[in-house]
Amino acid sequence: MKSKEKAGEAYLDNCRTTMVAREVVGTMLPFFTEKFGHPYSIYRLGQEANEAVASSREVIAKTIGAQREEILPTSGGTEANDIAIRGIAYGNRDRGNHIVTTKIEHPSTLRICEELSKEGFKVDYLDVDREGFVNLDQLKKTLSEKTILVSVMHVNNEIGTIEPVEEIGKILAEQKHKIYFHVNAAASYTKVPVNVDRMRADLLSLSAHKIHGPKGAGSLYVRRGTRIKPVIYGYISLSSLRPGTENVPGIVGIAKAAEIAFAKFDAYVRHMTKLRDRLIKGIESKVPDIILNGPRGGKRSPDNVNFSFKYIEGESIMLHLDLLGISVSTASACTSRKLEPSHVLTACGVPIEVAHGSIRFGVSRYNTENEIDYVLESLPGVIEKLRKISPLMHGNS
Amino acid sequence: MKSKEKAGEAYLDNCRTTMVAREVVGTMLPFFTEKFGHPYSIYRLGQEANEAVASSREVIAKTIGAQREEILPTSGGTEANDIAIRGIAYGNRDRGNHIVTTKIEHPSTLRICEELSKEGFKVDYLDVDREGFVNLDQLKKTLSEKTILVSVMHVNNEIGTIEPVEEIGKILAEQKHKIYFHVNAAASYTKVPVNVDRMRADLLSLSAHKIHGPKGAGSLYVRRGTRIKPVIYGYISLSSLRPGTENVPGIVGIAKAAEIAFAKFDAYVRHMTKLRDRLIKGIESKVPDIILNGPRGGKRSPDNVNFSFKYIEGESIMLHLDLLGISVSTASACTSRKLEPSHVLTACGVPIEVAHGSIRFGVSRYNTENEIDYVLESLPGVIEKLRKISPLMHGNS
Repeated sequence: MKSKEKAGEAYLDNCRTTMVAREVVGTMLPFFTEKFGHPYSIYRLGQEANEAVASSREVIAKTIGAQREEILPTSGGTEANDIAIRGIAYGNRDRGNHIVTTKIEHPSTLRICEELSKEGFKVDYLDVDREGFVNLDQLKKTLSEKTILVSVMHVNNEIGTIEPVEEIGKILAEQKHKIYFHVNAAASYTKVPVNVDRMRADLLSLSAHKIHGPKGAGSLYVRRGTRIKPVIYGYISLSSLRPGTENVPGIVGIAKAAEIAFAKFDAYVRHMTKLRDRLIKGIESKVPDIILNGPRGGKRSPDNVNFSFKYIEGESIMLHLDLLGISVSTASACTSRKLEPSHVLTACGVPIEVAHGSIRFGVSRYNTENEIDYVLESLPGVIEKLRKISPLMHGNS
Repeated sequence: MKSKEKAGEAYLDNCRTTMVAREVVGTMLPFFTEKFGHPYSIYRLGQEANEAVASSREVIAKTIGAQREEILPTSGGTEANDIAIRGIAYGNRDRGNHIVTTKIEHPSTLRICEELSKEGFKVDYLDVDREGFVNLDQLKKTLSEKTILVSVMHVNNEIGTIEPVEEIGKILAEQKHKIYFHVNAAASYTKVPVNVDRMRADLLSLSAHKIHGPKGAGSLYVRRGTRIKPVIYGYISLSSLRPGTENVPGIVGIAKAAEIAFAKFDAYVRHMTKLRDRLIKGIESKVPDIILNGPRGGKRSPDNVNFSFKYIEGESIMLHLDLLGISVSTASACTSRKLEPSHVLTACGVPIEVAHGSIRFGVSRYNTENEIDYVLESLPGVIEKLRKISPLMHGNS
């Protein structure tokens, strides 16, 4: 299988999705073929599954400073966001109809808010600065008596900006009435410390497939006492907020993925940071006419690198790199096929024609310095070649 | 692991959930660790995943007489029901607010309808006869100009009744206005032939974990041209009806499970029918004071056996059988912990005290005659022992 080995030469699209860790698969396997009982059955085979679900929730809870009962297994990050945002909206309609989020949220959040707007909710989208940081003064001014929810991502999935969620949580706590705070931690979890109490988050979304866990699994933290209405209906096993027979292997899988990541959290973060900075430094020294999107250093997620390459199309860069066995993204997954400029880069003030030439690299603990060096050897030639045939380049040179 | 081997002595709770077939796990595995790309990525690793999703949808489509584009991957049967029922309700509100279902539907359908009732929809629940068959005359009388949806299960999950869905489809097709027809085929798929055209179904729900596929995966058939509104919101990858990154291994898994089951459909059905009838005949000849719930012969799903054992509690029978390594159910999964009598048996006219002593056995292609004989050896003693200490028994003897 030569082609697969080639693709493995440098998988750098870890901000979009990740390889499932072999230990995670190993932990999931018995739940397919041996411990396959329904977690709601009170006989032994069912109780094995039930206990596995309970201890998995416990593992996840501990990594974010929560209690086991506050962890709701979901079918992924998107569903966690939907349950959180629409759940709070519907559950608190009598208190107000105002929701605040940002212009650079994940497409799932933006679409959920778009739907709520159609249903009579008023949604305000906060601006961000050039590096993607949310405007806290604007947040304070936007809040009103009718505000019931603020939803902000912890780390921006495209440009790696670590948002000041602790400050936001503090601002919300200072208001006279309860404003629920939802944090989408899909991009930050296992890369940046996440603590629901320090953030004063009432709800927090996690996704398994971003942390070397399986697709089809996620979690929503819901603080005890939160006033929330279900948005999905059906057969209730574990919780009325997320009906349906639990995906036991998926739940066990996300917990194992978290356990592995947190066992050596500092070492993995150091490793990712080193690769990230080697890649940034290398590209900046080897390729002219580029712009680093997002902040530098400690305010940037350790796994994220995002550059705009002037005069050329990100999609062409991506496809040329693919031929060399290097996997990267052009924009967030949602917009990649529409060929619209990234809403995140646009919000940061990046001109449309520059935004079009943007590439996101996502590193993980499994990447190596050799892989980064392979990218640094390959990329300059690709960029040069594409610029040679670019009408934009000729128009500008 | 002695305890697991013991549980494996006779797993007869296959109507609740099934062991994932080893070939299914084998087919899923590469999608965790090798072909782990995001199906929405246009580079090679993403396209591998995308093609796997497409061919999986094709496989499922063929088994029910549908087109690939009409198969929507979901996170399970419950979600399929929710997308179908609320989706049609919200998408056709302008044409009417009347929904018809039955008293013996799966708890997921009943809960979804309960929610719709709160939202202004009028839901009628059809009666069933003693064997669980829906009353077609009542259906005809219940339909009105305001009826937008009829939702009926193909096979009842508790008592195995095969409902006359083709007749229902015909009745609906004869009406002057379009009434959407949703069939919940979670309990029938791979056991009874399912064909969306013969049923004239517009929507049809499937669940993977009932057919030796993985938990956390299902499918909804949505006939082309169906007027349906999304009920879940978020990041759109494959379809706006089911947002979120696709559970690629789960989708591949349900397709493989279907492929295996349909490769030898007739042989597997014959095998299950033989085991079912051996169990029914054996119990009837060995245990007194019992009632078979549901019909006999060809109108009963080949995997289902359900008996009421008078004077004793189903839960006690279940726990005693568990000690002997035999896994069975007391009622549908949903109500099992509430100790309420089964809504299905109640609708069939089974007296509450008799319904309480009911046990469902579910056979699969993996069960053997030896396992059935082991149950037939073990069960009479358990029943006798429990009746000896039963106050009901003494009151009646």
